[in-house]
Amino acid sequence: MKLLEDRIEKDGYILGENIIKVDSFLNHQLDIKFLSELSEEVYNHFKDRGINKILTIEASGIALATVVSEKFGYLPVVFAKKQKTKNIGGDVYESKVQSFTTDKEYTVTVSKKFLNEGDKLLLIDDFLAEGNALNGLISIAEQSGAKVEGVSVAVEKGFQEGGKIIREEGYDLLSLAIIESIDNGEFTFRK
Amino acid sequence: MKLLEDRIEKDGYILGENIIKVDSFLNHQLDIKFLSELSEEVYNHFKDRGINKILTIEASGIALATVVSEKFGYLPVVFAKKQKTKNIGGDVYESKVQSFTTDKEYTVTVSKKFLNEGDKLLLIDDFLAEGNALNGLISIAEQSGAKVEGVSVAVEKGFQEGGKIIREEGYDLLSLAIIESIDNGEFTFRK
Repeated sequence: MKLLEDRIEKDGYILGENIIKVDSFLNHQLDIKFLSELSEEVYNHFKDRGINKILTIEASGIALATVVSEKFGYLPVVFAKKQKTKNIGGDVYESKVQSFTTDKEYTVTVSKKFLNEGDKLLLIDDFLAEGNALNGLISIAEQSGAKVEGVSVAVEKGFQEGGKIIREEGYDLLSLAIIESIDNGEFTFRK
Repeated sequence: MKLLEDRIEKDGYILGENIIKVDSFLNHQLDIKFLSELSEEVYNHFKDRGINKILTIEASGIALATVVSEKFGYLPVVFAKKQKTKNIGGDVYESKVQSFTTDKEYTVTVSKKFLNEGDKLLLIDDFLAEGNALNGLISIAEQSGAKVEGVSVAVEKGFQEGGKIIREEGYDLLSLAIIESIDNGEFTFRK
């Protein structure tokens, strides 16, 4: 969507080879009004799917998931946790994830209490590169018997494989902006 | 506030000695409508302080900070990160924090770009026990020259020291519910 593409051109920048930073509005400082505007497109795309719950992953997905929940008339949001703490309590679904930004493997967990067979889920995250975090969420959803009705991210890096893989698996993936390439600090978006 | 005390009595439970779990609405599954109702009290308490930015910490503080931001007419939210990734980019303020729930020490960081002298901050978190995370945020705010106008948490464990220390340091701390004691699985709230 143009709203997000314009903002990326205005406030996004590139670190090193291909790390795209949108930390002034999406994943360190959060422009909540802007996120709320983005969430309207997510709502319009998925509003007829009977979605009853939003699944995201800590930390940067939570704010976008919160404003999307509001647009859907306050759906419950469940966020997957990135490591086990001594107090997660009880049985969890879990999936191993390779982080693109830290090169480390971590485990994402969701308590079995909060995902059920029959749930119709919308998966939300801020960024999609190799798709590792989202594939972890999809695995957790499948373990629970819930159905993934849709997947939405703010920014997809179209020159990495994550989006392609998730679409080929048959999921309805809505990326609000797809960066096709970066050349000399200029972003080119997929139309 | 009674709204939160009632919800803790209904859905909260105790794990082990004194770990209070409110994971069905506050910090794993999120009841966004309920958080939005809580945020009204935060807004009413701090609305005349000239607050221009909200500072929270990943992950469980983000959803509450998001709905508080909305009540204040969409203030920017900055969330402190709990570990360095290779792409945080540039200079950061940092503070070491001892985790009550994992027994590990971690570093919280905020990019220097997003906190400035002259900022009037409201600090938000979901839980206050020993106060380690909040004291980390206070330290980061002080390093930046920003002023901490107020601190608000959803649940304070009144039988631990964090709230007492932060009040004695002179901060205006609003805890939406203060659990004074737990006996045989029953919560007693401070009035």
